[in-house]
Amino acid sequence: MTRYKIVIEYDGSDFCGWQRQQEALSVQEVLEEALFKFSHEKTELQGSGRTDAGVHAYGQVAHFDLEKETTAFRIKEALNALVRPYPIGILDCEEVSEDFNARFSAKKRFYVYKILNRRTPAVLDRKRVWHVLQPLDVEKMKEAASLMLGKHDFSTFRASECQAKSPVKTLDSFDIVRENEMIYCHVSARSFLHHQVRNMVGTLVLVGQGVWTVADFKRAFEACDRTKGGPTAPADGLYLKEILY
Amino acid sequence: MTRYKIVIEYDGSDFCGWQRQQEALSVQEVLEEALFKFSHEKTELQGSGRTDAGVHAYGQVAHFDLEKETTAFRIKEALNALVRPYPIGILDCEEVSEDFNARFSAKKRFYVYKILNRRTPAVLDRKRVWHVLQPLDVEKMKEAASLMLGKHDFSTFRASECQAKSPVKTLDSFDIVRENEMIYCHVSARSFLHHQVRNMVGTLVLVGQGVWTVADFKRAFEACDRTKGGPTAPADGLYLKEILY
Repeated sequence: MTRYKIVIEYDGSDFCGWQRQQEALSVQEVLEEALFKFSHEKTELQGSGRTDAGVHAYGQVAHFDLEKETTAFRIKEALNALVRPYPIGILDCEEVSEDFNARFSAKKRFYVYKILNRRTPAVLDRKRVWHVLQPLDVEKMKEAASLMLGKHDFSTFRASECQAKSPVKTLDSFDIVRENEMIYCHVSARSFLHHQVRNMVGTLVLVGQGVWTVADFKRAFEACDRTKGGPTAPADGLYLKEILY
Repeated sequence: MTRYKIVIEYDGSDFCGWQRQQEALSVQEVLEEALFKFSHEKTELQGSGRTDAGVHAYGQVAHFDLEKETTAFRIKEALNALVRPYPIGILDCEEVSEDFNARFSAKKRFYVYKILNRRTPAVLDRKRVWHVLQPLDVEKMKEAASLMLGKHDFSTFRASECQAKSPVKTLDSFDIVRENEMIYCHVSARSFLHHQVRNMVGTLVLVGQGVWTVADFKRAFEACDRTKGGPTAPADGLYLKEILY
């Protein structure tokens, strides 16, 4: 039995998310079926974490075990052929030791959230960005974002269905960069609460629009109460970028 | 009667190209129908030039005349609503003088061609790039590209259906930039022959792959003979970026 780690890119638009579900197609299911076609073994994939329906990945990570005598290179090539026509690609595959766990060994998770900030709706980036038509004040958004750096109770940005034991997380970075009409929010932490990135971005956009002041944002954040936070930003703009182990 | 100039972004994947055709849907047809819904006038759109099926645009330009009393802003807003659900967006609309012609007044045309250079097929960029899996030597490609700068006979890169009077064109720039797995070819000229950009890129990729030397490229270019050139790069990677007037 050998354990393998794979790095996966996917377009989340037409999936119910990463995690296998009864009624709808998930990225996990497509990959597990491709692995079965390749190895004739029933294998379960463990991802670094779930992504919601519509959320994309440049670098989701998962592990699985195979009995079959093969190589990491062959697995990668076979999976890339067998997942077709789904928008999923294996960027990397390597043998890892059996104590590697895609979920529990992760040291840092990186996400990017993309906002298209212009009047005209998204065209080439449709389903890949959140279209916000009011001009956003990025400086104000940065100021508010900086309040969240470090160890805090993130209850204001926690989905009610969140299963984490504690709402306390350590946010390592939140960098906001404007490039013409695009605004990129780069965030990293060891782990996140359910919907945390989308809720943080949705609330920061209120600040960028001038609907909220930075002081309003601070009050909401410190209230540690989801009902005091802003809306959840749409899934379309969110990308799981990289996992560090 | 007022003449308007519009700047248009579109995803060319599911269109037969810019130009109206009998059997298939074009960007021009969608826009002309939206204009008719808005104005109840039969208007013909004149684009800066055609784009092939599958070719995208960040900044196609077209002009048209309307009798209706309205404003450029209203036209833009109405068109963006009326073209739905097609992946077409009006980025800008302005009144121009009646001697403005989107095709003949153009001083410079800018294209970008995107190559995804990695083993794994395109996922998030599917239908947006040309996937080339052999590692490309960008320095060699740059060397070959520089031979085409200035005024030359471009017959080697001219489609047989090309309707231009002369194969002589002046290429103003051809910049090749690698960013990780992506290679961007930025080209500009007052005008191009039919398929010129795709044929130049298709032939440069032979050089990048090491199938051809730079000397082979030079010989083919100087032969002024399409049968001596390389293959036509796929439409998916090509974007009409900007037109200068």
